[in-house]
Amino acid sequence: MNNIAILGASGYTGAELVRLIATHPEMEIKALGADRKAGLEYGKVFPHLRHLDLPILQKIEEIDFSGIDLVFCGLPHATSQRVIKALPDHLKIVDLSADFRLRDPAEYKKWYGGDHAALELQKTAVYGLTEFYRDAIKPARLVAGTGCNAITGLLPILPLLKAKIIDPDQIIIDLATGVSGAGRGAKEAMLHSEVSEGFHAYAIASHRHLGEFDQEFSKAAGQAVTVSFTPHLLPQNRGILATIYVQGDAKTIYETLVAQYSDEPFVYVLPFGEAPATRHVRGSNYCHIGVVPDRQSGRAIIFSALDNLTKGSSGQAIQNANLMLGLEETTGLQLAPLFP
Amino acid sequence: MNNIAILGASGYTGAELVRLIATHPEMEIKALGADRKAGLEYGKVFPHLRHLDLPILQKIEEIDFSGIDLVFCGLPHATSQRVIKALPDHLKIVDLSADFRLRDPAEYKKWYGGDHAALELQKTAVYGLTEFYRDAIKPARLVAGTGCNAITGLLPILPLLKAKIIDPDQIIIDLATGVSGAGRGAKEAMLHSEVSEGFHAYAIASHRHLGEFDQEFSKAAGQAVTVSFTPHLLPQNRGILATIYVQGDAKTIYETLVAQYSDEPFVYVLPFGEAPATRHVRGSNYCHIGVVPDRQSGRAIIFSALDNLTKGSSGQAIQNANLMLGLEETTGLQLAPLFP
Amino acid sequence: MNNIAILGASGYTGAELVRLIATHPEMEIKALGADRKAGLEYGKVFPHLRHLDLPILQKIEEIDFSGIDLVFCGLPHATSQRVIKALPDHLKIVDLSADFRLRDPAEYKKWYGGDHAALELQKTAVYGLTEFYRDAIKPARLVAGTGCNAITGLLPILPLLKAKIIDPDQIIIDLATGVSGAGRGAKEAMLHSEVSEGFHAYAIASHRHLGEFDQEFSKAAGQAVTVSFTPHLLPQNRGILATIYVQGDAKTIYETLVAQYSDEPFVYVLPFGEAPATRHVRGSNYCHIGVVPDRQSGRAIIFSALDNLTKGSSGQAIQNANLMLGLEETTGLQLAPLFP
Amino acid sequence: MNNIAILGASGYTGAELVRLIATHPEMEIKALGADRKAGLEYGKVFPHLRHLDLPILQKIEEIDFSGIDLVFCGLPHATSQRVIKALPDHLKIVDLSADFRLRDPAEYKKWYGGDHAALELQKTAVYGLTEFYRDAIKPARLVAGTGCNAITGLLPILPLLKAKIIDPDQIIIDLATGVSGAGRGAKEAMLHSEVSEGFHAYAIASHRHLGEFDQEFSKAAGQAVTVSFTPHLLPQNRGILATIYVQGDAKTIYETLVAQYSDEPFVYVLPFGEAPATRHVRGSNYCHIGVVPDRQSGRAIIFSALDNLTKGSSGQAIQNANLMLGLEETTGLQLAPLFP
Repeated sequence: MNNIAILGASGYTGAELVRLIATHPEMEIKALGADRKAGLEYGKVFPHLRHLDLPILQKIEEIDFSGIDLVFCGLPHATSQRVIKALPDHLKIVDLSADFRLRDPAEYKKWYGGDHAALELQKTAVYGLTEFYRDAIKPARLVAGTGCNAITGLLPILPLLKAKIIDPDQIIIDLATGVSGAGRGAKEAMLHSEVSEGFHAYAIASHRHLGEFDQEFSKAAGQAVTVSFTPHLLPQNRGILATIYVQGDAKTIYETLVAQYSDEPFVYVLPFGEAPATRHVRGSNYCHIGVVPDRQSGRAIIFSALDNLTKGSSGQAIQNANLMLGLEETTGLQLAPLFP
Repeated sequence: MNNIAILGASGYTGAELVRLIATHPEMEIKALGADRKAGLEYGKVFPHLRHLDLPILQKIEEIDFSGIDLVFCGLPHATSQRVIKALPDHLKIVDLSADFRLRDPAEYKKWYGGDHAALELQKTAVYGLTEFYRDAIKPARLVAGTGCNAITGLLPILPLLKAKIIDPDQIIIDLATGVSGAGRGAKEAMLHSEVSEGFHAYAIASHRHLGEFDQEFSKAAGQAVTVSFTPHLLPQNRGILATIYVQGDAKTIYETLVAQYSDEPFVYVLPFGEAPATRHVRGSNYCHIGVVPDRQSGRAIIFSALDNLTKGSSGQAIQNANLMLGLEETTGLQLAPLFP
Repeated sequence: MNNIAILGASGYTGAELVRLIATHPEMEIKALGADRKAGLEYGKVFPHLRHLDLPILQKIEEIDFSGIDLVFCGLPHATSQRVIKALPDHLKIVDLSADFRLRDPAEYKKWYGGDHAALELQKTAVYGLTEFYRDAIKPARLVAGTGCNAITGLLPILPLLKAKIIDPDQIIIDLATGVSGAGRGAKEAMLHSEVSEGFHAYAIASHRHLGEFDQEFSKAAGQAVTVSFTPHLLPQNRGILATIYVQGDAKTIYETLVAQYSDEPFVYVLPFGEAPATRHVRGSNYCHIGVVPDRQSGRAIIFSALDNLTKGSSGQAIQNANLMLGLEETTGLQLAPLFP
Repeated sequence: MNNIAILGASGYTGAELVRLIATHPEMEIKALGADRKAGLEYGKVFPHLRHLDLPILQKIEEIDFSGIDLVFCGLPHATSQRVIKALPDHLKIVDLSADFRLRDPAEYKKWYGGDHAALELQKTAVYGLTEFYRDAIKPARLVAGTGCNAITGLLPILPLLKAKIIDPDQIIIDLATGVSGAGRGAKEAMLHSEVSEGFHAYAIASHRHLGEFDQEFSKAAGQAVTVSFTPHLLPQNRGILATIYVQGDAKTIYETLVAQYSDEPFVYVLPFGEAPATRHVRGSNYCHIGVVPDRQSGRAIIFSALDNLTKGSSGQAIQNANLMLGLEETTGLQLAPLFP
């Protein structure tokens, strides 16, 4: 049994970690860290988990990490780097924030502002895109989970850039995401009255996950790749769908993705010409990818759907933690999606 | 390992059975029965389950039941009784339809119209309200799952009538249910455009689950009990909340319910004065019950929340099947609710 | 043309007033008051109204009231009484807050806490339930709009208490309301992720609108009436449905309501046995009422549906303002509901 | 006063016509045509309009058209052409189906299958994109309303192709639409349980509105234009958002659109860099357009939002009918959007 602490447990990614670990046979939650909600029973903060026997929420500085094996850190960026820097050396760490995703400090500063407070750690952190960094994740001390939008675009496109079968200058990622990705903070723009029965784009051509796209796509292509990326906010809680327009042969793209993912436990390439739906991956660690030829030959539309709280953050985090702890990668993650 | 067949697998209760059995360690699905959709892969009918290795949908008459241990029957009422009557004797059966819930053929005819085609089976069927009929369910061949609205009202009220601590003539069950309870049939009234952003009552003072209330409440009270019951349709997919107005002492009611359910694995009585929410049981087999005193002394408001597709039908069905197969009652059912 | 100022224009009731006045032929908006958002164009605060030519939002203390005829005041309670107390004498005022609804200062203190800062005004204010106080509203200087839940229960029940055809000790008002009633303030509990796909009761047996029920029901019945009242929060933006359980003859109740409302422009009594839906009054000033006999003779279930932002607050406010300004009561209010 | 008949009045576009005409000062509904629902009161079919005094639904063949001035035809395509062919010559007709949108019979056959049954009428019909065909619409007998998705893409892109400021070979229209566009027919795929909490693309690279894009874009550009077009289904009832990726200078695009639409009553170009939301045009005849520069110079992202049932069909139809009847174009159409 591996002893687990979750920092930032009062947010949605924290609750999703608790939900998934509740039926994970090899992990046991020993500490739950929070700030404002320290002192509360977890079931008061998240009543859907009231049936679980869990530790009381604590201030991070009050947690005894001596018996802990691995820490999930679901804190806001900037806070995360300061907290992680101070954690004892024996701990393995999976960070769900943006703090350790970008290799280049200049890129970090460009997208997130301010200097990085833990540059040494940033150097050693491994990017948590399991399907591409599995070997580096296994022995890592610190793994940086991907952005939820980032992984939705990276999984279908990275293999195509590596195989050099799409034009790297003509990639458009149009994406729609559920509301839970914005977290549990009280913001006017995320009220039910503001979100339901409507749809709009946000952070157009300026979303921070562009830093991850630039880093990973450029590395894969062996040249600078600058994608277009337009996220939209959906009137639903969970789920991201990326609709990606590329120039390349649809059938070749399809076959490349099938070859890439045929042995992956969580990435499914649908039959040629079919497109996925976010509702069919809700609450699960699966990613569904579809390839459809466009009207014009030489162009294709690629779809990618996953749950932002599961494969997009907390499920992915557990997948990486499984590897870091020497467990079977899929342990505790094969829950079927919830539909309807 | 117990071999399972699911009849009526192309409906929502069928899909929920498949979802739950997917991570059940002691059940394996060997046959999936459907009518119009026979011949299709299950993942075509329910793409959220495409990652599972499942049998092709078959016509019921083409299923080989010889190696099957237990059948879940999710067919419409009236159809269900004819199909079950013809099933081989060696099969254990959990029926999710209304066909075997009512003991009295006259009551069946009153609420569902027409004569019952399997009166002998009706006599031997056990009502699937696990928390009250556990001993009879274990050795039963045929268990009749409760109505999803019925169980939501029965769990909080039955113990109070048995204890004679509420007035049996003054029980009002006001209830709101999600859309999935209406099934997957294409009906104008269940279109997204018709259901979302709205709320209304239906089947007022005439809902068929009244037959179950009358049967079970009268038996518990030792006298005829006629409740008021008003169901409403919610603009959400899953979840039932019953708000029940009774005349009796709130604290006594609370203590009676705590005593009744303190050892039950799936029924939680919240702290006195707290009320549950459907979103906190979504996708799980849990039922949350709350008791709040009314303004007027001697009156109380009791709340009960569960997921209509899980504790209200398919989760309950597996709970009963576990008992019938000699398994631990909770096997495969301890998934945490999905929130948000 | 009547010159209008709206104070508290940055909230939902303010926006609803602007929406309705936009097509009102006898009112023109001359000033819009706000606090934090003062200085902004109205279209920045509510982009759905960007096509209108409106004044810039101002601090209330900066508004020149000299040319204004009537003020709508959509401020929070407690603030409202202080602001209204300081308004020039020539102004007619329709207050949408709770500050002037209760006649008895002790009742005000009981439900809202603290002493009332404008007791003299409180004495002269008229309760804005148009259908019952029309004659007093016409000459009034200050009209206090009803609570949105309150009016939903008052319209169907007041005539029955006056006619003494229901038992005043056995009235249960079960009610469900959309999220917009909670306003535009950023609260965790009102986030889309917290509200959608779920249903729960709140302020059980303690909601402040009970003060209005007690005042009006007791006056109508000529004796103290204490109702049970349980509000629930719906995953929808607009609309309230009250489901009211009474003891009395359903047919007599129906006929009493038909007689009461046959000449009313905004209150519709549906055919006997039919029940309304909130989606069928959305965005309109209509209230739909239905009466259905219960299973037990001598009991009835009464339904009442209206839009909390329209008939429940801003539409009602304009209806009252029309009367106060000597206009036809229905002016600008006959917009059809928006469905789907 | 102009006498109006609505054929296909039992669908959503029919109800939207009735809703809008209810407050239109120069139109009066004299006949409502339906098929299966003939004989019913309109308020039984659409309870939100029960307060209106309307004719009973009739079979089309039973309608007396002698006193009618203008017919709105909201029938399914293929049916529409047969019915319209048989209408008396004195009638002006606004068709909301696809039957008369395409000028070229071969294109009609390609996208809709089968031969056109009213080729002579097809030749004379005017495409109902008011902002571009106003002069031809005024004297027309038959105007063919645009597809709801088509108009959402045409309004922002047509002026750019005419001005030759974007690359006609690199236009990608990514679009998301509400459910009401699919009509009121009972289809499994449009059930609340299937649509809510999810998002997916449909009719990828094959949607029939491509016929309209090809026709209008090619005509405007003076060369064959083949766009990419991917519609998605939103979990909301009303509203379309098009996100359009083009190659051209963002500022030039913005200025061209501002110049094109500055005098238009229903098309608003937002300040440079801002993007619209569907919720801010709900229930109105307005279209909001925004232009945002992409990360890469020489590329822009254009957004267009409108209500599919209003500006996308029934509002547009009334706008055209106003012109055909010699009325002010905006008559009855200046209702403000409904938010929240």
